[in-house]
Amino acid sequence: MISSDLNTPVLLLDKEKLMVNIHRMQSSADRLGVALRPHLKTLKSADAARVLVQSGARGITVSTLREAGYFLEHGFSDITYAISIVPSRLPEVARLMSLGADLKIMTDNMEVARVIASYANSSGIPYRVLIEIDCGDQRGGIKSDNEALISIVECIDASCAIFEGVLTHAGHAYDVNSIFAIEAVAKQERDVAVHAATRIRNAGYDVPTISVGSTPTGLFARDLTGVSELRAGVYTVFDMDQQSRGVCVVEDIALSVLSSVIGHNKAAGKILLDAGGLALSKDRGADKFRPEVGYGQVCDVDGQVITDLYVKSVSQEHGHVPVRNADDFKKFPIGSYLRILPIHACMTAAAYDRFALVEKGVITTHWDRVNGW
Amino acid sequence: MISSDLNTPVLLLDKEKLMVNIHRMQSSADRLGVALRPHLKTLKSADAARVLVQSGARGITVSTLREAGYFLEHGFSDITYAISIVPSRLPEVARLMSLGADLKIMTDNMEVARVIASYANSSGIPYRVLIEIDCGDQRGGIKSDNEALISIVECIDASCAIFEGVLTHAGHAYDVNSIFAIEAVAKQERDVAVHAATRIRNAGYDVPTISVGSTPTGLFARDLTGVSELRAGVYTVFDMDQQSRGVCVVEDIALSVLSSVIGHNKAAGKILLDAGGLALSKDRGADKFRPEVGYGQVCDVDGQVITDLYVKSVSQEHGHVPVRNADDFKKFPIGSYLRILPIHACMTAAAYDRFALVEKGVITTHWDRVNGW
Repeated sequence: MISSDLNTPVLLLDKEKLMVNIHRMQSSADRLGVALRPHLKTLKSADAARVLVQSGARGITVSTLREAGYFLEHGFSDITYAISIVPSRLPEVARLMSLGADLKIMTDNMEVARVIASYANSSGIPYRVLIEIDCGDQRGGIKSDNEALISIVECIDASCAIFEGVLTHAGHAYDVNSIFAIEAVAKQERDVAVHAATRIRNAGYDVPTISVGSTPTGLFARDLTGVSELRAGVYTVFDMDQQSRGVCVVEDIALSVLSSVIGHNKAAGKILLDAGGLALSKDRGADKFRPEVGYGQVCDVDGQVITDLYVKSVSQEHGHVPVRNADDFKKFPIGSYLRILPIHACMTAAAYDRFALVEKGVITTHWDRVNGW
Repeated sequence: MISSDLNTPVLLLDKEKLMVNIHRMQSSADRLGVALRPHLKTLKSADAARVLVQSGARGITVSTLREAGYFLEHGFSDITYAISIVPSRLPEVARLMSLGADLKIMTDNMEVARVIASYANSSGIPYRVLIEIDCGDQRGGIKSDNEALISIVECIDASCAIFEGVLTHAGHAYDVNSIFAIEAVAKQERDVAVHAATRIRNAGYDVPTISVGSTPTGLFARDLTGVSELRAGVYTVFDMDQQSRGVCVVEDIALSVLSSVIGHNKAAGKILLDAGGLALSKDRGADKFRPEVGYGQVCDVDGQVITDLYVKSVSQEHGHVPVRNADDFKKFPIGSYLRILPIHACMTAAAYDRFALVEKGVITTHWDRVNGW
């Protein structure tokens, strides 16, 4: 039982579900014959990283240099910083490397590559550089057939920096909601990465790392021949965004926001929770396939889904839950707890400094997080 | 000039604009003959509260008890906690009162009123209780003609707790975007609050506080006769949500996120910023009236609006800005700064521990914030 005097909203992390999810992706990586380098942008927690590494992960991925510093302090040195580097961050990268970080940085830009090469030459720091490839997501990265690809490799390779390999992310796996469609995106992700690597090898360079990944493609790829590692993050806890795309079932979701019923607006037919836009985030990522879910699926205090009960709108500190009938006001009295399954775990978790770990229905400990930049 | 080696994203607060905005609402309250009790849910900063009180504010409003504790520590004792109280929070309220807080709590529920009365009687703590009225927002509050209104007053008044008055918030002022329509909502907000107070007075009770407010209604109310105080928060900095409703002009917006250009996806025609969903929030509050703004208006490093340049989509750490033409890639090279005017200031600011204060174009100091619960 969850104790009744908590200062809600509280971010709960179900340890058993977490472990099942971690095992599921690790098994997928093992089956596909690639290393798993989990993306800690979701959990941002050294305790979580420890569990991941104990479960077979090789190295970690981060989304900020603050995360890189935090994980290094906690003993994790094999780190890929998977956001395009800007030159002003090279001194901080150098500092982290001097403290022992085996830190990989990333670019997709010739001018930035020249700056990295120049910094590396003048300082002697062997920056390790991945090139980002766009496999269809249209975020970062160059196309695998872009002429600049080989020029960037040449530029890095001719300097004191080290060319490490290629990296891509199939963010467009979130545009679909069938396993067959995800498989097709996973094939595209792999094919594009391998195509880029092949071009580079044909130009005479080694490509030690060929890194791909997203939660959907990591779980449903049929074949990753030629790929060396997989990156994914949200699979550790899942969320309604993933559920709406068929990547997990609702029972897999390990993250929830424990909230208190703080009001009954009977005239408007809604229950008010103390989990609003700040506590849940305003992510509407499930809208495309399950718009009825709004800002979160309502569950009881033990995490059992309550059918047809959703956080349909939010203000800063209020979540609005339309009731199904007047009985709901009796079932969920003021002061009672409800758990909300988040739409997008990464966004929701970022509002909290720590997770409350739930094991066999009881909060047993807390895991801290590193937020901000 | 903003120095070029900042660790972006950085939350900038323009001091001059802040002061103009503070003066504008204070003048409105003065003109209307009501006290101004600013809502610190937006700025969550003791430095900001100091400026507000020096500018004429009487007391403050908060949205969490953590804020109440923080502001008390910093010397602000006259505090209204404007979220429905749940019984489990009464011990913390008592603790803050014992430390010197003149803390007003709020309910709209008969059962909660009974619990407050019972706690007050058994502990001797004179909880000061406001009743929340729903003036059309359909969030918290009972209707001013609800029979329970007088029963709640009776219950509180018969105990060691103190009945303090009524409070309402015209959140539905955000449903409209003309000054005339806002004026009509402001009239409704005032009329409903005064109606509730009149019923209570007719039942034989004093009503010391009649509290109304929102940024739009606070600025555009024509007459607040019978009202004692005004609450509003986002007016201090404004945002694109307010601008889209005609409440401010874009030049009034005092809050912005300084971000770095981290990528040029020329194939997709977009600039990538290091201000994504976490740095800006995923609030889409401007969609109703200005959907083109997306997740934020792009400005140059000095805060000048760049016409037709918007953050159209976000992922966790990326903001995607479609370029107008190929020239934009030259104008905004990788590593250069852009400022983003947020959609919803309260949501955006919550991702940061502090504001960087900008005065005459230079960061002069930092103001800390209290986030979380």
